[in-house]
Amino acid sequence: MNNRGTDKGNIETERNIDAERNLDFFFKPESIALIGASPNPGKLSHTILESLRDIGFSGKLYPVNPGYREIEGLKCYAAPGEINDRIDLAIFAVPASAVLEILRGPVENIKGAVIVSSGFRETGEEGKRMEAELKSLLKEKRIRAIGPNCLGIYDTVSKVDTFFIGSDKVERPVRDGISVLTQSGSFAAMIMDEMANEGIGVARVVSYGNKADVDENDCLEFLSEDGATKAVVLYIEAVGDGRRFLDVASRCVKKKPVVALKVGKREPGARAASSHTGAVSGMYEAYEAAFRKTGIIEVAGYEELKDACKALNRYSPVSGKRALIITDGGGIGISIADACEEAGLEVPELPEEAVLRLKEKLPPFASVRNPIDLTGSVRDEHYVAALREAFGERFDLAIVSLLWGPPLLSEGVAEKIRDFADNSGKPVLICSPGGKFSRKMASAFTAAGMPVFFTPESAVRAAAVLCGRKK
Amino acid sequence: MNNRGTDKGNIETERNIDAERNLDFFFKPESIALIGASPNPGKLSHTILESLRDIGFSGKLYPVNPGYREIEGLKCYAAPGEINDRIDLAIFAVPASAVLEILRGPVENIKGAVIVSSGFRETGEEGKRMEAELKSLLKEKRIRAIGPNCLGIYDTVSKVDTFFIGSDKVERPVRDGISVLTQSGSFAAMIMDEMANEGIGVARVVSYGNKADVDENDCLEFLSEDGATKAVVLYIEAVGDGRRFLDVASRCVKKKPVVALKVGKREPGARAASSHTGAVSGMYEAYEAAFRKTGIIEVAGYEELKDACKALNRYSPVSGKRALIITDGGGIGISIADACEEAGLEVPELPEEAVLRLKEKLPPFASVRNPIDLTGSVRDEHYVAALREAFGERFDLAIVSLLWGPPLLSEGVAEKIRDFADNSGKPVLICSPGGKFSRKMASAFTAAGMPVFFTPESAVRAAAVLCGRKK
Repeated sequence: MNNRGTDKGNIETERNIDAERNLDFFFKPESIALIGASPNPGKLSHTILESLRDIGFSGKLYPVNPGYREIEGLKCYAAPGEINDRIDLAIFAVPASAVLEILRGPVENIKGAVIVSSGFRETGEEGKRMEAELKSLLKEKRIRAIGPNCLGIYDTVSKVDTFFIGSDKVERPVRDGISVLTQSGSFAAMIMDEMANEGIGVARVVSYGNKADVDENDCLEFLSEDGATKAVVLYIEAVGDGRRFLDVASRCVKKKPVVALKVGKREPGARAASSHTGAVSGMYEAYEAAFRKTGIIEVAGYEELKDACKALNRYSPVSGKRALIITDGGGIGISIADACEEAGLEVPELPEEAVLRLKEKLPPFASVRNPIDLTGSVRDEHYVAALREAFGERFDLAIVSLLWGPPLLSEGVAEKIRDFADNSGKPVLICSPGGKFSRKMASAFTAAGMPVFFTPESAVRAAAVLCGRKK
Repeated sequence: MNNRGTDKGNIETERNIDAERNLDFFFKPESIALIGASPNPGKLSHTILESLRDIGFSGKLYPVNPGYREIEGLKCYAAPGEINDRIDLAIFAVPASAVLEILRGPVENIKGAVIVSSGFRETGEEGKRMEAELKSLLKEKRIRAIGPNCLGIYDTVSKVDTFFIGSDKVERPVRDGISVLTQSGSFAAMIMDEMANEGIGVARVVSYGNKADVDENDCLEFLSEDGATKAVVLYIEAVGDGRRFLDVASRCVKKKPVVALKVGKREPGARAASSHTGAVSGMYEAYEAAFRKTGIIEVAGYEELKDACKALNRYSPVSGKRALIITDGGGIGISIADACEEAGLEVPELPEEAVLRLKEKLPPFASVRNPIDLTGSVRDEHYVAALREAFGERFDLAIVSLLWGPPLLSEGVAEKIRDFADNSGKPVLICSPGGKFSRKMASAFTAAGMPVFFTPESAVRAAAVLCGRKK
């Protein structure tokens, strides 16, 4: 990156603008420097080294720490400037003051930085001053940076993991299609942990913290063009550049679904000071308007966000909102139908012809309406028969609920339903409430690549997201 | 029970009315007959025998089946009339037609029956006829009955378990204070399984199915006077005798909280037939009015019902709706505050004095407002300090959210918070989202006897139930 020097001819400037917009080095790094690397397992930087190795980062890895000549079998450098290579990603895992000190030195070979360190803006006046200096140093040295005060990047595509929380505490999800953008590191950790725990994968997760440089808009722009990202999930405390957000989000929504959770809707602290109420609640309304305008699917809270991740990982949104409900226990079918009504989905009756066809194929006392109740006499193939005969043109998606009490029901039903869903091209959402035995049986669906929801409301929230929450 | 004969003098009649209202024999049986008992592990009746033994029923147990002389070490009788003892509870686990045949014979020694058999009203015209005969036989023989088409009784107090689903499929909860009444057997099984899975207990669960005789009103009347029941949960498809329900429920609510989930609010089938719409939706409004009038806390769905069970098992309702929120991760505190606002709870600011006292006791960068954010520097005692200094008179309950990333936070925090909650007399609800590690850490709270909620919304739903959902 010697072309980053003082020469500022026209061509060079254009190239720089391109480089500044292109964040590939964050998401396809060939070389990573870990600044503040340590052989001490108690240090955050050691956890990051482990995270990078566990995920299987295959590029060049350069530990940086003047106190060591070697760490975990890798040659250790005293400073980034001593590394005779371009550094796509420098992870700063040193105290805030040391971040500034290192950036004041020779760092011309660094393209991108992830600054996990806290101690900046979030800590008060002195921190604000330091963050201002950080910003000006980044600009001066032409380094794009994520952070500070963040967890950085968890990326199953390029196999990068800068999270300083070990996988013993926060499990890592496998590779799949959802990418998550969030200011909050604790949110990033929480959703990753829960998704991993349920066997659901992600593409890229970015916790960008104080966003001294790279913000949600930069990341969203990248993800919009990213082939590995099937859908984007935004956890938003506040958007900095609203105008650009409208632009970038509108363009992204044309390519893939974008889901957003806005938190701090009516900030209790501000609300208490009554003079601020109008301003704050007006602000939330501005977010709502932006979501509507851009076509972002807004979710109401954490549960719905998680449900959205599970649904969009597997299915694309649909154009209608008519739900077919199939179950083997009457009560739960009614609960699902109630929840559909609450969520603004429709639960239309089955077509006459379908009823006639189904009466021949289902158990004798099955209730052949919507919801379809296959009763405790259900066998695996009844679920498929009900889907095949009833789905037709009348429904946009199906919610299939399984209680595992019926003796003739087996785990084999998962692959049968999965095959039907694959062929139909319409979303089939699985609802399987219950305890240990039910979870074990339901894991057959996860193994078959289908998302499983554990309450009627959860399955219906997912369905509502797929229907674009057209209430 | 020879006084049940043909002698119908005045005194006898009064005694019978008393006996008919008093359902003690269902909930404190000294003798149980299992009609249709079988040594074959594939039979439902065999599962019931196992259920009764597993729970540790200590009264007399009489298997009844003309085909055997002994089952599992117990003397087997050809018919209930051959048992030379009063039978408090006869569990009928035989086909519908056999139930009628047995009831036509000598059954004078039976006081109460649990008829788990299906094949009655729920199966069509012939079933309706059989259920009518069942009703008249029960009346004629003066037998009170739960069912048919039900799971019957799971009772941790009297140690009775008539459920024909093994504990390998549906885990059994330990003893605690919630009692559940439900028509739906699948709902009974589902909620028991989930509660057991989360380490939460119950007092008595009754799945009453077709309620040919005993209905929700009879059971509610019993639970209202039942010392072992701290709170009652109703899962309602339809109430038969509305007037009596208003009376019984009003009286029960004066003694203990009653929570209800009404399902089939706007029955999709009926709604599709547009002529029925008004009637059906009017019916739901009648239920809503009844809940309001009696003081029953209505919950919106299954998730809220489960949250209510967890909260009411440990805490009594409060008179206000002001929530104190304490967390160690900013993002989740904001989500909880948002959810409180949605649910109609208040999140008032901390009193000035509390802020001053707390600034001395909490980590340097803690956010001392409501929500209180103890940050990643949190130690166990900070949670207790925050509760002690902030709770005061201003708040009705606290939601304490723990993310388990902070290195100085330990499982010991659970007993410290539990002790505080015990002394304060106010509800403290724990919110602990995340995957395996978080669940493991959070189990310290369950072990300490505190309910744990796994999402912000779930904790807030529980809080709203304790506040009587005064929106």
